[in-house]
Amino acid sequence: MVISSLDNEKIKKYKKLQKKKYRDLYHQYIVEGMHLVLEAYKTGVIEELILEENEIIPLPIPYTYVTKEIMKKISSLDTPSSVMAVCHKKEKENDNFGNRILILDEIQDPGNLGTIIRSAVAFSIDTIILSENTVDLYNPKVLRATQGMIFHVNIIIRNAFEIVPLLQNYGIPVYGTQVDHGMDVRSLTKKDKERFALVVGNEGNGVRLEISSMCDRNLYINMNDSVESLNVAVATSILLYELGR
Amino acid sequence: MVISSLDNEKIKKYKKLQKKKYRDLYHQYIVEGMHLVLEAYKTGVIEELILEENEIIPLPIPYTYVTKEIMKKISSLDTPSSVMAVCHKKEKENDNFGNRILILDEIQDPGNLGTIIRSAVAFSIDTIILSENTVDLYNPKVLRATQGMIFHVNIIIRNAFEIVPLLQNYGIPVYGTQVDHGMDVRSLTKKDKERFALVVGNEGNGVRLEISSMCDRNLYINMNDSVESLNVAVATSILLYELGR
Repeated sequence: MVISSLDNEKIKKYKKLQKKKYRDLYHQYIVEGMHLVLEAYKTGVIEELILEENEIIPLPIPYTYVTKEIMKKISSLDTPSSVMAVCHKKEKENDNFGNRILILDEIQDPGNLGTIIRSAVAFSIDTIILSENTVDLYNPKVLRATQGMIFHVNIIIRNAFEIVPLLQNYGIPVYGTQVDHGMDVRSLTKKDKERFALVVGNEGNGVRLEISSMCDRNLYINMNDSVESLNVAVATSILLYELGR
Repeated sequence: MVISSLDNEKIKKYKKLQKKKYRDLYHQYIVEGMHLVLEAYKTGVIEELILEENEIIPLPIPYTYVTKEIMKKISSLDTPSSVMAVCHKKEKENDNFGNRILILDEIQDPGNLGTIIRSAVAFSIDTIILSENTVDLYNPKVLRATQGMIFHVNIIIRNAFEIVPLLQNYGIPVYGTQVDHGMDVRSLTKKDKERFALVVGNEGNGVRLEISSMCDRNLYINMNDSVESLNVAVATSILLYELGR
């Protein structure tokens, strides 16, 4: 059976998942496109596939067929894929943070968050901690920009003011970031890079002052004076690249 | 006088500049927001300011007042700024490329292009060469993502197949980029970084094979095997950061 009505209860539910409110309520989200669906499948988070009529995917998962028009209504894209999946958020967060931690303080742009997650996996970050006002992790643009890497790293949400001293209590040095002063990231020693939490901040304002003042060190990237700052996903990626040397 | 009619000839012209076709025809484009307008002003490319009624800007440049509603029609943003400027494209391209060149081969995403330009200025690139199928430099999203840095670097458009051998004839080594093989960018010597042209490619496909095969070397960034690739703006920025060491 191919669903073609917007009044269908399933379709109503799928449409709701476009909004953070309902993603939070149902603990579910939708991924779009074959690449993301396969990554989600490997992680075991898919509950149901949504397929455009005639699409065939040989995965042992319940599926619902819908028309192209319905696909368009559910999708966040102008040109939707013929494959989507309803996924459940991870039941339990992993409180074993590992040795390489990234803290994101109020990142607002979904593309930036997704790109940072992709880079964090590339440079072997164990845990990403999102502050409470960060853009929703399950926003479709975030998911897309991660290129599926969201499923390859432990990601948790915490209050940044509480997590920084907690990590310091565990003996993990916390590195803030500041554009105008601090320490050139190139000056870090091998030992400085063994175990750390790096904090990067909001696109417009950087790391909140109350948080950077709690940090053990603040790092900067050496660059041309005529530029005030780099894009936050770029800056974070360069710092992670250096911390992985 | 405050223009409030969409039938006004000036307003019709401004609206046309939302499209590449007309930007090419008139050799003009619009920048939005105080930060970009000031950067454009410093470069001397502004022909006219477009201001929302009541806005006052003490710059010695002709201006046109329009209503908030008209501002919305001209703007590329959901929440327009109260300040825009009509700018002219640079009359003459600078054919003195300098020693540090970046070639962008068919970059498609405006946010990526803008972010790369911002990073290129931060890491002291002299000239950016765009291949012919690159997204329009004067696309509003590109301009915004450059954070005004578009005015701080020589940017030209060339056929990539012609420019690579030309630069090599000048004795400039051309470095391609490849995800899967090539040379770790960290292995470059000080001398390798004195004078170069770096080629980075399209979001989905990377540098076209015919071009990377012309390059003197292909570079890669050392990272975790589970990640196929980085975002192109991130990868380019890391390479430029390394080439600036």
